[in-house]
Amino acid sequence: MSRLRVESFTISLDGFGAGPRQDLDNPLGVGGTALHAWAFSTRTFQRAVFGGDGGATGTIDDDFAARGFTNVGAWILGRNMFGPVRGPWPDENWRGWWGENPVYHVPVFVLTHHPRAPLVMEGGTTFHFVTDGMAAAVARAREAANGKDVRLGGGVNVIRQGLRLRLIDEMHVAIAPVLLGSGERLFEGIDLPSLGYAVTRHVASPLAIHVVIARQPAR
Amino acid sequence: MSRLRVESFTISLDGFGAGPRQDLDNPLGVGGTALHAWAFSTRTFQRAVFGGDGGATGTIDDDFAARGFTNVGAWILGRNMFGPVRGPWPDENWRGWWGENPVYHVPVFVLTHHPRAPLVMEGGTTFHFVTDGMAAAVARAREAANGKDVRLGGGVNVIRQGLRLRLIDEMHVAIAPVLLGSGERLFEGIDLPSLGYAVTRHVASPLAIHVVIARQPAR
Repeated sequence: MSRLRVESFTISLDGFGAGPRQDLDNPLGVGGTALHAWAFSTRTFQRAVFGGDGGATGTIDDDFAARGFTNVGAWILGRNMFGPVRGPWPDENWRGWWGENPVYHVPVFVLTHHPRAPLVMEGGTTFHFVTDGMAAAVARAREAANGKDVRLGGGVNVIRQGLRLRLIDEMHVAIAPVLLGSGERLFEGIDLPSLGYAVTRHVASPLAIHVVIARQPAR
Repeated sequence: MSRLRVESFTISLDGFGAGPRQDLDNPLGVGGTALHAWAFSTRTFQRAVFGGDGGATGTIDDDFAARGFTNVGAWILGRNMFGPVRGPWPDENWRGWWGENPVYHVPVFVLTHHPRAPLVMEGGTTFHFVTDGMAAAVARAREAANGKDVRLGGGVNVIRQGLRLRLIDEMHVAIAPVLLGSGERLFEGIDLPSLGYAVTRHVASPLAIHVVIARQPAR
């Protein structure tokens, strides 16, 4: 069955999924890049993002990074993950953070309140802009994934929606051993046990603490 | 130099230091005892609390439990850690959760808004009730500790005060791989990097993720 998965979503030890004050120079907010040292250390991430052969294999970090790209047939992103533009799209100029050949290579559904025509990129990625909400995006992504899973990339707000609606099947969260102090808290205002979620795995690497949270079968 | 330390303070993965609805049957709030499975597994805790020889030694968990009792000359507790009584003390009947020979064996300073005479227990523990605030409690505890460190037991509210006042030198936090969903959040409304704190260590055991946060020297 096609599952909705969050993978490699990283928060700080004090619970923040992104630093404050996102802009062009700081797509993850100020201090946000320190969160991702574990991902940068991996061959999987280096290959996917930079196309190079840097990074380590066979590590806990690389194993988690790699599982995030396994059996993924479509992605869902919140609009702020797609870019820094807010409000109605002023033009078609913004085409994502990732250049003309984005890292996804599958259909990507971007949640936004503002309609925009699909954006066909190189390498198999097409950005579709979904204006009718989370559940609709999941339905469309599932269809596009054609039997594979759907990966929900984030950010914090979109993941919280997915949890509140109990749409997320499994979530890998990496907790980086850094403190951000402010920003968006992943678990703010969410009662995960009441929603039926439980921790199913935890393991630490030198650069992060990896945790898997899964929706439990209804009793 | 005598330091103010938090040790073995356990929070859930979603950030709660105690479960909701503390009462006589649930001194740690509903669900709060699941947090402490790592501590119950240790020889140090079994010996300190039950006087028995159960529990494991040589584990990551026991090492952290043991460091919490090393070089401690006095304790500070928030009133809710001392007991479930709220408001003015109705009488002298409540003598703590720990029986006549409490686990502390040194002077313990209980923060409260309501004065009460010191309570001399067996085994070296005396409870002193401090009504003039956190900084005063730290000063008195430091004097009583006679060169040793002061351990700040909690709860959440008292630790937050200690962090905001930059009084805490070092803090060992255990993150249990459980979700509580509601309760008191340890890091709520605290900007640790701005206060000069940083993560200095993290390691995971099968039962918890151990993290050390320390105040950095002023630059």
